[in-house]
Amino acid sequence: MDVFIEPIGRLMNEFSKLPGVGKKTAQRYAYRVINMSEAEARAFAEAIVDVKKKVRYCSVCGNFTEKEVCGICATRSKNVICVVKEPKDVIALEKLREFKGVYHVLHGVIDPMNGVFPNDIRIKELLSRIAEGGVEEVIMATNPDVEGEATAMYVAKLLKPLGVKVTRIAHGVPIGSELEYTDEVTLSRALLDRKQM
Amino acid sequence: MDVFIEPIGRLMNEFSKLPGVGKKTAQRYAYRVINMSEAEARAFAEAIVDVKKKVRYCSVCGNFTEKEVCGICATRSKNVICVVKEPKDVIALEKLREFKGVYHVLHGVIDPMNGVFPNDIRIKELLSRIAEGGVEEVIMATNPDVEGEATAMYVAKLLKPLGVKVTRIAHGVPIGSELEYTDEVTLSRALLDRKQM
Repeated sequence: MDVFIEPIGRLMNEFSKLPGVGKKTAQRYAYRVINMSEAEARAFAEAIVDVKKKVRYCSVCGNFTEKEVCGICATRSKNVICVVKEPKDVIALEKLREFKGVYHVLHGVIDPMNGVFPNDIRIKELLSRIAEGGVEEVIMATNPDVEGEATAMYVAKLLKPLGVKVTRIAHGVPIGSELEYTDEVTLSRALLDRKQM
Repeated sequence: MDVFIEPIGRLMNEFSKLPGVGKKTAQRYAYRVINMSEAEARAFAEAIVDVKKKVRYCSVCGNFTEKEVCGICATRSKNVICVVKEPKDVIALEKLREFKGVYHVLHGVIDPMNGVFPNDIRIKELLSRIAEGGVEEVIMATNPDVEGEATAMYVAKLLKPLGVKVTRIAHGVPIGSELEYTDEVTLSRALLDRKQM
Protein backbone atom coordinates (compact mmCIF):
# COMPACT_ATOMS: atom_id res chain seq x y z
CA MET A 1 0.00 0.00 0.00
CA ASP A 2 2.97 2.35 -0.41
CA VAL A 3 1.11 4.36 -3.05
CA PHE A 4 -1.02 5.66 -0.16
CA ILE A 5 0.33 8.16 2.33
CA GLU A 6 0.58 6.79 5.85
CA PRO A 7 -2.62 8.12 7.48
CA ILE A 8 -4.76 6.96 4.54
CA GLY A 9 -3.05 3.56 4.38
CA ARG A 10 -3.52 3.12 8.10
CA LEU A 11 -7.22 4.02 7.99
CA MET A 12 -7.72 1.65 5.04
CA ASN A 13 -6.07 -1.06 7.08
CA GLU A 14 -8.48 -0.40 9.97
CA PHE A 15 -11.51 -0.52 7.68
CA SER A 16 -10.24 -3.82 6.22
CA LYS A 17 -10.79 -5.40 9.63
CA LEU A 18 -14.57 -5.01 9.23
CA PRO A 19 -16.35 -8.11 7.91
CA GLY A 20 -16.44 -8.36 4.12
CA VAL A 21 -14.39 -5.22 3.54
CA GLY A 22 -11.60 -5.62 0.98
CA LYS A 23 -8.91 -3.21 -0.16
CA LYS A 24 -11.10 -1.40 -2.69
CA THR A 25 -14.00 -0.88 -0.28
CA ALA A 26 -11.61 0.22 2.47
CA GLN A 27 -10.25 2.82 0.05
CA ARG A 28 -13.76 4.14 -0.71
CA TYR A 29 -14.55 4.35 3.01
CA ALA A 30 -11.28 6.16 3.71
CA TYR A 31 -12.01 8.72 1.00
CA ARG A 32 -15.44 9.26 2.49
CA VAL A 33 -13.84 10.02 5.84
CA ILE A 34 -11.39 12.46 4.20
CA ASN A 35 -14.38 14.28 2.75
CA MET A 36 -16.17 14.46 6.11
CA SER A 37 -16.03 17.62 8.19
CA GLU A 38 -13.68 17.45 11.17
CA ALA A 39 -16.68 17.38 13.52
CA GLU A 40 -18.23 14.48 11.61
CA ALA A 41 -15.00 12.47 11.73
CA ARG A 42 -14.67 13.17 15.43
CA ALA A 43 -18.25 11.99 16.07
CA PHE A 44 -17.53 8.81 14.10
CA ALA A 45 -14.36 8.12 16.10
CA GLU A 46 -16.15 8.85 19.35
CA ALA A 47 -18.98 6.42 18.51
CA ILE A 48 -16.38 3.66 18.06
CA VAL A 49 -14.66 4.34 21.36
CA ASP A 50 -18.00 4.80 23.16
CA VAL A 51 -19.37 1.48 22.01
CA LYS A 52 -16.38 -0.25 23.61
CA LYS A 53 -16.56 1.88 26.74
CA LYS A 54 -20.31 1.77 27.36
CA VAL A 55 -21.55 -1.54 25.99
CA ARG A 56 -21.32 -4.55 28.26
CA TYR A 57 -23.24 -7.74 28.88
CA CYS A 58 -26.35 -7.82 31.03
CA SER A 59 -25.47 -9.72 34.22
CA VAL A 60 -28.77 -11.62 33.98
CA CYS A 61 -29.37 -12.49 30.32
CA GLY A 62 -26.02 -11.78 28.64
CA ASN A 63 -27.48 -9.35 26.09
CA PHE A 64 -25.82 -6.02 25.28
CA THR A 65 -26.60 -3.25 27.73
CA GLU A 66 -25.25 0.03 29.06
CA LYS A 67 -26.27 -0.81 32.62
CA GLU A 68 -25.70 -3.70 35.02
CA VAL A 69 -29.06 -5.24 34.01
CA CYS A 70 -30.54 -4.68 30.54
CA GLY A 71 -33.80 -2.88 29.83
CA ILE A 72 -35.57 -6.10 28.93
CA CYS A 73 -34.60 -7.96 32.11
CA ALA A 74 -35.39 -4.91 34.23
CA THR A 75 -38.95 -4.47 33.03
CA ARG A 76 -40.45 -7.69 31.72
CA SER A 77 -42.14 -10.69 33.23
CA LYS A 78 -39.65 -13.50 33.81
CA ASN A 79 -41.89 -16.53 33.45
CA VAL A 80 -40.88 -17.20 29.84
CA ILE A 81 -37.20 -17.24 28.81
CA CYS A 82 -36.19 -17.36 25.16
CA VAL A 83 -32.72 -18.88 24.72
CA VAL A 84 -30.65 -17.64 21.78
CA LYS A 85 -27.09 -18.00 20.54
CA GLU A 86 -26.04 -14.36 20.16
CA PRO A 87 -27.15 -10.81 21.03
CA LYS A 88 -28.08 -10.19 17.39
CA ASP A 89 -30.71 -12.93 17.67
CA VAL A 90 -32.35 -10.87 20.42
CA ILE A 91 -32.52 -7.95 17.98
CA ALA A 92 -34.15 -10.16 15.33
CA LEU A 93 -36.80 -11.34 17.79
CA GLU A 94 -37.38 -7.92 19.34
CA LYS A 95 -38.09 -6.46 15.91
CA LEU A 96 -41.22 -8.64 15.79
CA ARG A 97 -42.63 -6.85 18.86
CA GLU A 98 -44.46 -10.08 19.72
CA PHE A 99 -42.41 -11.83 22.36
CA LYS A 100 -43.05 -10.28 25.77
CA GLY A 101 -40.77 -12.46 27.91
CA VAL A 102 -37.06 -12.26 28.66
CA TYR A 103 -34.01 -13.70 26.92
CA HIS A 104 -30.95 -15.75 27.70
CA VAL A 105 -27.97 -15.31 25.41
CA LEU A 106 -25.71 -18.37 25.37
CA HIS A 107 -22.87 -16.59 23.57
CA GLY A 108 -22.26 -19.61 21.38
CA VAL A 109 -23.53 -23.11 20.80
CA ILE A 110 -22.09 -26.49 21.66
CA ASP A 111 -19.66 -27.39 18.89
CA PRO A 112 -17.11 -30.01 20.04
CA MET A 113 -15.46 -30.09 16.60
CA ASN A 114 -14.42 -26.49 17.17
CA GLY A 115 -13.64 -26.96 20.83
CA VAL A 116 -16.84 -25.43 22.25
CA PHE A 117 -18.21 -27.57 25.09
CA PRO A 118 -21.27 -27.03 27.33
CA ASN A 119 -19.12 -25.31 29.96
CA ASP A 120 -17.90 -22.76 27.42
CA ILE A 121 -21.32 -21.22 26.88
CA ARG A 122 -23.76 -19.66 29.37
CA ILE A 123 -25.68 -22.82 30.30
CA LYS A 124 -24.79 -22.71 34.01
CA GLU A 125 -26.18 -19.17 34.16
CA LEU A 126 -29.45 -20.38 32.61
CA LEU A 127 -29.71 -23.15 35.21
CA SER A 128 -29.25 -20.71 38.08
CA ARG A 129 -31.92 -18.44 36.66
CA ILE A 130 -34.32 -21.37 36.65
CA ALA A 131 -33.23 -22.43 40.13
CA GLU A 132 -34.39 -19.03 41.37
CA GLY A 133 -37.93 -20.11 40.45
CA GLY A 134 -40.82 -18.51 38.61
CA VAL A 135 -39.85 -19.78 35.16
CA GLU A 136 -42.67 -21.62 33.45
CA GLU A 137 -41.35 -22.05 29.93
CA VAL A 138 -38.00 -21.99 28.16
CA ILE A 139 -38.14 -21.47 24.39
CA MET A 140 -35.03 -22.81 22.66
CA ALA A 141 -34.44 -20.40 19.74
CA THR A 142 -30.96 -21.45 18.69
CA ASN A 143 -30.39 -21.66 14.92
CA PRO A 144 -31.85 -24.64 13.04
CA ASP A 145 -28.40 -26.03 12.17
CA VAL A 146 -26.57 -29.05 13.58
CA GLU A 147 -24.94 -27.18 16.48
CA GLY A 148 -28.08 -25.21 17.25
CA GLU A 149 -30.20 -28.38 17.34
CA ALA A 150 -27.67 -30.24 19.47
CA THR A 151 -27.50 -27.36 21.92
CA ALA A 152 -31.29 -27.15 22.13
CA MET A 153 -31.49 -30.89 22.82
CA TYR A 154 -28.73 -30.74 25.42
CA VAL A 155 -30.31 -27.83 27.30
CA ALA A 156 -33.78 -29.41 27.09
CA LYS A 157 -32.45 -32.59 28.70
CA LEU A 158 -30.97 -30.58 31.58
CA LEU A 159 -34.11 -28.53 32.15
CA LYS A 160 -36.84 -31.14 31.96
CA PRO A 161 -36.01 -32.75 35.35
CA LEU A 162 -36.42 -29.26 36.88
CA GLY A 163 -40.10 -29.29 35.92
CA VAL A 164 -39.83 -26.50 33.32
CA LYS A 165 -41.69 -26.70 30.02
CA VAL A 166 -39.11 -26.59 27.23
CA THR A 167 -40.20 -25.72 23.69
CA ARG A 168 -38.38 -25.33 20.37
CA ILE A 169 -39.16 -22.78 17.64
CA ALA A 170 -40.96 -24.45 14.72
CA HIS A 171 -39.06 -25.56 11.64
CA GLY A 172 -40.75 -25.77 8.27
CA VAL A 173 -41.37 -24.15 4.93
CA PRO A 174 -40.76 -20.37 5.17
CA ILE A 175 -43.88 -18.25 4.56
CA GLY A 176 -43.97 -16.94 0.98
CA SER A 177 -41.54 -19.53 -0.36
CA GLU A 178 -42.37 -22.20 -2.92
CA LEU A 179 -42.33 -25.92 -2.18
CA GLU A 180 -40.50 -26.53 -5.44
CA TYR A 181 -37.51 -24.53 -4.25
CA THR A 182 -37.48 -25.59 -0.61
CA ASP A 183 -34.50 -27.78 0.31
CA GLU A 184 -35.24 -31.42 1.04
CA VAL A 185 -34.32 -31.40 4.71
CA THR A 186 -36.66 -28.48 5.43
CA LEU A 187 -39.45 -29.99 3.37
CA SER A 188 -39.25 -33.39 5.06
CA ARG A 189 -39.19 -31.63 8.44
CA ALA A 190 -42.27 -29.61 7.47
CA LEU A 191 -44.04 -32.85 6.58
CA LEU A 192 -42.99 -34.57 9.80
CA ASP A 193 -44.07 -31.63 11.99
CA ARG A 194 -47.43 -31.23 10.24
CA LYS A 195 -50.27 -29.85 12.36
CA GLN A 196 -53.94 -30.73 12.39
CA MET A 197 -56.05 -28.01 10.72
CA MET B 1 -33.65 1.66 15.75
CA ASP B 2 -35.05 1.56 19.27
CA VAL B 3 -34.33 -2.17 19.53
CA PHE B 4 -30.64 -1.17 19.72
CA ILE B 5 -29.18 0.44 22.81
CA GLU B 6 -27.97 3.99 22.25
CA PRO B 7 -24.20 3.50 21.73
CA ILE B 8 -24.80 0.67 19.23
CA GLY B 9 -27.53 2.59 17.39
CA ARG B 10 -25.29 5.63 17.20
CA LEU B 11 -22.31 3.67 15.85
CA MET B 12 -24.58 1.99 13.26
CA ASN B 13 -25.74 5.44 12.23
CA GLU B 14 -22.13 6.55 11.75
CA PHE B 15 -21.29 3.47 9.68
CA SER B 16 -24.38 4.12 7.52
CA LYS B 17 -22.72 7.32 6.32
CA LEU B 18 -20.09 5.29 4.46
CA PRO B 19 -20.83 4.73 0.76
CA GLY B 20 -22.99 1.68 0.06
CA VAL B 21 -23.50 0.80 3.72
CA GLY B 22 -27.10 0.00 4.67
CA LYS B 23 -28.66 -0.81 8.02
CA LYS B 24 -27.76 -4.50 7.97
CA THR B 25 -24.12 -3.92 7.04
CA ALA B 26 -23.85 -1.12 9.62
CA GLN B 27 -25.09 -3.60 12.23
CA ARG B 28 -22.46 -6.18 11.22
CA TYR B 29 -19.73 -3.54 11.39
CA ALA B 30 -20.94 -2.35 14.81
CA TYR B 31 -20.86 -5.90 16.17
CA ARG B 32 -17.35 -6.32 14.85
CA VAL B 33 -16.29 -3.21 16.77
CA ILE B 34 -17.95 -4.53 19.94
CA ASN B 35 -15.89 -7.68 19.58
CA MET B 36 -12.63 -5.74 19.10
CA SER B 37 -10.26 -5.26 22.01
CA GLU B 38 -10.35 -1.80 23.54
CA ALA B 39 -6.90 -1.08 22.06
CA GLU B 40 -8.08 -2.10 18.60
CA ALA B 41 -11.14 0.13 18.80
CA ARG B 42 -9.00 3.01 20.00
CA ALA B 43 -6.57 2.53 17.09
CA PHE B 44 -9.52 2.50 14.68
CA ALA B 45 -10.95 5.73 16.12
CA GLU B 46 -7.53 7.35 16.10
CA ALA B 47 -6.99 6.47 12.43
CA ILE B 48 -10.23 8.28 11.57
CA VAL B 49 -9.31 11.43 13.47
CA ASP B 50 -5.72 11.31 12.19
CA VAL B 51 -6.75 11.16 8.56
CA LYS B 52 -8.69 14.40 9.01
CA LYS B 53 -5.91 15.99 11.02
CA LYS B 54 -2.93 15.00 8.91
CA VAL B 55 -4.14 14.69 5.34
CA ARG B 56 -4.22 17.85 3.27
CA TYR B 57 -3.78 18.82 -0.35
CA CYS B 58 -0.34 19.33 -1.90
CA SER B 59 0.06 23.05 -2.58
CA VAL B 60 1.52 22.25 -6.00
CA CYS B 61 -0.48 19.38 -7.50
CA GLY B 62 -3.54 19.11 -5.24
CA ASN B 63 -2.96 15.46 -4.37
CA PHE B 64 -3.29 14.15 -0.80
CA THR B 65 -0.21 14.70 1.33
CA GLU B 66 0.90 15.03 4.93
CA LYS B 67 3.33 17.82 4.10
CA GLU B 68 3.14 21.19 2.34
CA VAL B 69 4.35 19.59 -0.92
CA CYS B 70 3.64 15.92 -1.70
CA GLY B 71 6.31 13.25 -2.12
CA ILE B 72 5.76 13.07 -5.86
CA CYS B 73 6.13 16.83 -6.47
CA ALA B 74 9.14 16.97 -4.14
CA THR B 75 11.20 14.33 -5.90
CA ARG B 76 10.23 13.93 -9.54
CA SER B 77 11.09 15.65 -12.77
CA LYS B 78 8.50 18.30 -13.62
CA ASN B 79 8.69 18.29 -17.40
CA VAL B 80 5.62 16.04 -17.83
CA ILE B 81 2.39 16.77 -15.94
CA CYS B 82 -0.46 14.26 -15.91
CA VAL B 83 -3.83 15.96 -15.28
CA VAL B 84 -6.48 13.94 -13.44
CA LYS B 85 -9.88 14.57 -11.91
CA GLU B 86 -9.39 13.22 -8.39
CA PRO B 87 -6.68 12.06 -5.98
CA LYS B 88 -7.82 8.45 -6.42
CA ASP B 89 -6.88 8.67 -10.10
CA VAL B 90 -3.31 9.40 -8.99
CA ILE B 91 -3.39 6.17 -6.97
CA ALA B 92 -4.63 4.21 -10.01
CA LEU B 93 -1.81 5.58 -12.17
CA GLU B 94 0.87 5.24 -9.49
CA LYS B 95 0.02 1.56 -9.10
CA LEU B 96 1.32 1.02 -12.64
CA ARG B 97 4.78 2.22 -11.59
CA GLU B 98 5.29 3.45 -15.14
CA PHE B 99 4.64 7.17 -15.16
CA LYS B 100 7.66 9.06 -13.83
CA GLY B 101 6.35 12.62 -14.10
CA VAL B 102 4.19 14.70 -11.79
CA TYR B 103 0.44 15.14 -11.47
CA HIS B 104 -2.13 17.88 -11.37
CA VAL B 105 -5.40 17.08 -9.63
CA LEU B 106 -8.28 19.23 -10.88
CA HIS B 107 -10.64 18.22 -8.04
CA GLY B 108 -13.53 17.91 -10.44
CA VAL B 109 -14.34 18.31 -14.11
CA ILE B 110 -16.26 20.97 -15.99
CA ASP B 111 -19.94 20.08 -15.69
CA PRO B 112 -22.18 23.13 -16.29
CA MET B 113 -25.35 21.05 -15.85
CA ASN B 114 -24.31 20.50 -12.24
CA GLY B 115 -22.96 24.00 -11.75
CA VAL B 116 -19.26 23.21 -12.11
CA PHE B 117 -17.53 25.80 -14.30
CA PRO B 118 -13.84 26.15 -15.30
CA ASN B 119 -13.21 28.50 -12.37
CA ASP B 120 -14.49 25.91 -9.89
CA ILE B 121 -11.72 23.43 -10.60
CA ARG B 122 -7.93 23.80 -10.38
CA ILE B 123 -7.29 25.03 -13.93
CA LYS B 124 -5.75 28.39 -12.90
CA GLU B 125 -3.25 26.50 -10.74
CA LEU B 126 -2.28 24.36 -13.75
CA LEU B 127 -1.73 27.49 -15.87
CA SER B 128 0.55 29.05 -13.25
CA ARG B 129 2.58 25.85 -13.03
CA ILE B 130 3.11 26.00 -16.77
CA ALA B 131 3.89 29.73 -16.63
CA GLU B 132 6.79 28.87 -14.32
CA GLY B 133 8.35 27.08 -17.29
CA GLY B 134 10.06 23.73 -17.81
CA VAL B 135 6.88 21.82 -18.71
CA GLU B 136 7.19 19.99 -22.03
CA GLU B 137 4.06 17.86 -22.05
CA VAL B 138 0.68 17.81 -20.35
CA ILE B 139 -1.16 14.47 -20.46
CA MET B 140 -4.91 14.90 -20.04
CA ALA B 141 -6.02 11.81 -18.08
CA THR B 142 -9.56 12.82 -17.13
CA ASN B 143 -12.18 10.08 -17.44
CA PRO B 144 -13.41 9.11 -20.92
CA ASP B 145 -16.95 10.41 -20.25
CA VAL B 146 -18.68 13.54 -21.55
CA GLU B 147 -17.45 15.84 -18.76
CA GLY B 148 -13.94 14.36 -18.80
CA GLU B 149 -13.65 14.81 -22.57
CA ALA B 150 -15.00 18.36 -22.43
CA THR B 151 -12.57 19.28 -19.67
CA ALA B 152 -9.66 17.76 -21.60
CA MET B 153 -10.61 19.74 -24.71
CA TYR B 154 -11.04 22.96 -22.73
CA VAL B 155 -7.68 22.66 -21.00
CA ALA B 156 -5.94 21.66 -24.24
CA LYS B 157 -7.28 24.81 -25.94
CA LEU B 158 -5.89 26.97 -23.13
CA LEU B 159 -2.48 25.29 -23.11
CA LYS B 160 -1.66 25.03 -26.80
CA PRO B 161 -0.99 28.79 -27.25
CA LEU B 162 1.57 28.47 -24.44
CA GLY B 163 3.66 26.16 -26.60
CA VAL B 164 3.11 23.06 -24.46
CA LYS B 165 2.49 19.67 -26.05
CA VAL B 166 -0.91 18.42 -24.85
CA THR B 167 -1.79 14.73 -25.16
CA ARG B 168 -4.82 12.64 -24.23
CA ILE B 169 -4.79 9.08 -22.91
CA ALA B 170 -5.83 6.60 -25.61
CA HIS B 171 -9.39 5.33 -25.85
CA GLY B 172 -10.20 1.98 -27.37
CA VAL B 173 -11.00 -1.65 -26.78
CA PRO B 174 -9.78 -2.73 -23.31
CA ILE B 175 -7.03 -5.37 -23.38
CA GLY B 176 -8.46 -8.86 -22.76
CA SER B 177 -12.01 -7.88 -23.72
CA GLU B 178 -13.95 -9.24 -26.68
CA LEU B 179 -15.06 -7.12 -29.65
CA GLU B 180 -18.48 -8.76 -29.50
CA TYR B 181 -19.15 -7.34 -26.05
CA THR B 182 -17.52 -3.95 -26.49
CA ASP B 183 -20.01 -1.07 -26.53
CA GLU B 184 -20.53 0.69 -29.86
CA VAL B 185 -19.09 4.05 -28.86
CA THR B 186 -15.83 2.48 -27.69
CA LEU B 187 -15.61 0.24 -30.73
CA SER B 188 -16.16 3.07 -33.20
CA ARG B 189 -13.58 5.14 -31.31
CA ALA B 190 -11.11 2.25 -31.46
CA LEU B 191 -11.65 2.06 -35.22
CA LEU B 192 -11.27 5.82 -35.68
CA ASP B 193 -8.07 5.97 -33.60
CA ARG B 194 -6.48 2.98 -35.34
CA LYS B 195 -2.68 2.96 -35.54
CA GLN B 196 -0.35 1.79 -38.29
CA MET B 197 1.32 -1.52 -37.40
